[in-house]
Amino acid sequence: MDGNAVAPNCLAGIKVLDLTQFEAGTSCTEALAWMGAEVVKVEPPKGGEAGRRGVADPYYFMAYNANKKSITVNLKSERGLELVKDMARKADVFTENFAPGAIERLGLGYDVVSALNPRIVYAQVKGFGVGSPYENGLCFDPIAQACGGAMSITGERDGKPVKPGPTIGDTGTGMLLAFSIVSALYQRMQTEKGRRLQAAMQDSVMHYSRGMFIRQAQTGKAALRQPIGGNAPHGIFPCKPGGPNDYVYLLTSRANPEHWPRLLKLIGREDLIGDPRYDTAAARVEREAEVDELISDWTRRHTKQEAMALISGAGVPAGAVFDSMELTGEPSFAKRGILQTVRHGDWQMTMPTWPVRFDGAPPPINPAPQLGEHTTEVFADWLGLGPTEVEKLREQEIV
Amino acid sequence: MDGNAVAPNCLAGIKVLDLTQFEAGTSCTEALAWMGAEVVKVEPPKGGEAGRRGVADPYYFMAYNANKKSITVNLKSERGLELVKDMARKADVFTENFAPGAIERLGLGYDVVSALNPRIVYAQVKGFGVGSPYENGLCFDPIAQACGGAMSITGERDGKPVKPGPTIGDTGTGMLLAFSIVSALYQRMQTEKGRRLQAAMQDSVMHYSRGMFIRQAQTGKAALRQPIGGNAPHGIFPCKPGGPNDYVYLLTSRANPEHWPRLLKLIGREDLIGDPRYDTAAARVEREAEVDELISDWTRRHTKQEAMALISGAGVPAGAVFDSMELTGEPSFAKRGILQTVRHGDWQMTMPTWPVRFDGAPPPINPAPQLGEHTTEVFADWLGLGPTEVEKLREQEIV
Repeated sequence: MDGNAVAPNCLAGIKVLDLTQFEAGTSCTEALAWMGAEVVKVEPPKGGEAGRRGVADPYYFMAYNANKKSITVNLKSERGLELVKDMARKADVFTENFAPGAIERLGLGYDVVSALNPRIVYAQVKGFGVGSPYENGLCFDPIAQACGGAMSITGERDGKPVKPGPTIGDTGTGMLLAFSIVSALYQRMQTEKGRRLQAAMQDSVMHYSRGMFIRQAQTGKAALRQPIGGNAPHGIFPCKPGGPNDYVYLLTSRANPEHWPRLLKLIGREDLIGDPRYDTAAARVEREAEVDELISDWTRRHTKQEAMALISGAGVPAGAVFDSMELTGEPSFAKRGILQTVRHGDWQMTMPTWPVRFDGAPPPINPAPQLGEHTTEVFADWLGLGPTEVEKLREQEIV
Repeated sequence: MDGNAVAPNCLAGIKVLDLTQFEAGTSCTEALAWMGAEVVKVEPPKGGEAGRRGVADPYYFMAYNANKKSITVNLKSERGLELVKDMARKADVFTENFAPGAIERLGLGYDVVSALNPRIVYAQVKGFGVGSPYENGLCFDPIAQACGGAMSITGERDGKPVKPGPTIGDTGTGMLLAFSIVSALYQRMQTEKGRRLQAAMQDSVMHYSRGMFIRQAQTGKAALRQPIGGNAPHGIFPCKPGGPNDYVYLLTSRANPEHWPRLLKLIGREDLIGDPRYDTAAARVEREAEVDELISDWTRRHTKQEAMALISGAGVPAGAVFDSMELTGEPSFAKRGILQTVRHGDWQMTMPTWPVRFDGAPPPINPAPQLGEHTTEVFADWLGLGPTEVEKLREQEIV
């Protein structure tokens, strides 16, 4: 990091009472924290939030809880619940993603919290929407990816469905909720009223997978797995030296008939330019295996980096399949501040910051908090409690 | 749709001057439109935006341009450019995702537009960030998914990298930019100043793929493809009647040792409860093929819907792999307003709306506009031009 990170500070002054756990909820409030909101995680005194508790290392927690504060409260004690209700009176946003029904059992359901504070934006993530046949079901990222259609469109053309690696069910949902929260805050400047927001992971996965509804409308059938076909060459091609991620992805477009002769020229097969066996998109699709072999024969003799540079240099879209280590090793990410190395106690991790630049700079990352790190500070700031009072609450195992 | 959709209206009064195309940019402004912003697409008079031009059917355009207005302007005419500059003076947000350098060549770069209107939020999507070695490269969703690490973590454990079906490079980027735009608008209420926002598709894909940096921190190696392993059974299992998407995804958790005996009971293999060959997570990982076969032997005798209901009913997380047609056929989506059927001229399509509910209701979908449908209306509203003036501009092929 070249020290060029600057906090965007867009949501300075916004107080978020954060009861989220794992990733779908925490990624949402982390986005708010990157924008400058004061996000206070409320965690159980014994072990903390589920994403921190019982996990051997803190990396998971670090990734999704940067820039937040942590306080501990025993929500099952009467006084603890009262304290959190007092905080709800001061908060702008309340967030949670417990299992269905749990927040109501805790005594912090929408009706309770919105009565305490009608200006609050009350935001929830569940696996399935209210009214879904699975409404009461537990959900994790892969379950949402299965039920939301993402797996049905991922995989080899004739192979099994495959789970996408990116956590569309978790972080994907978190992003949609974060956008909705800020929109509701914007509106509140005029209405002075809060809103109730509900995101379902299944529905969110469908949002990122919308292409399947386009293909279904076109064909009248369920969308197929990728690559879609309809053109060739299009897809992933093996590169030197043949490691598990030594591939280049390239695509030629029906709308761009020059792509094919450009490729032929690049791979030294000018002899095939104009050859009717390959000259139209339809002809190439019919001979796809042959076409792919022509291209692979060339890509196998180049590294993915060379292949990407040469193919895209020839005017055909191409991208190397980079893995996490290669991305970490690419110095421009550190220089641009997109990847930053953070510490959490004795642990250290290189992780991405919020990827959108504001006025040319990425946001800095403050490491995820230690459990209860801000208990004294936040109770003083939000509720005016003195350190002795907090100490007493601690002795009583309320915080 | 049961008529229960209600526009959230959070961004009412916000004017978006929208020069986006294809999906990464259009999905961003569509989100703003779902929140009630007035999004005006500026399209070339001949054929319109690239995602509409030369495509055989309008489904792609319909999916990413709901609730927007469309005007036509020839940006290469001096008068046309002046008109758009006049609009920039009135707009709250300016968005574009042309190829690198194109917006500056059009004469609508950040310096020009922010000088005309210092309050404007100027937001751009490119494939790669400023300072990246690929900064000037063209990008499409699969290229971003290759270069952003998503493909490296998607696929069978020992297979090739696979492109995730959800368009994380496109819609994924659009969501991060939309959140950033509304955050900047929120801030502007106090500062009265606009901001410059830049999102790169590669960086955005890394955001959704952050899990790979966690696994890399844990192992010191590049993150592997899914499923991660570390527990068994965990993954996708075949169901009756054996169609391409007849699978159920289930996961057992190391933190939850009851998952295994629950499964054994469900599949009628109580005889194996406590059997040391399978009793610990470590033992099951060692005999993973055997464990998977035990489970598959049962799942093959059930449909995915039955399997999901029975497994999750037994307290083990499970989800059926639904395809687009099955999701469309599930009546609760229409009833909940999450899927809505829209018309665009003679075309009709069932598509998802914004998935987050506001006060219990999803937003309605107004179909994507016809090319230039709002030219007369918008020039009157934004610039006070009369219909005769607009007619003259049309005759001169300026609009």
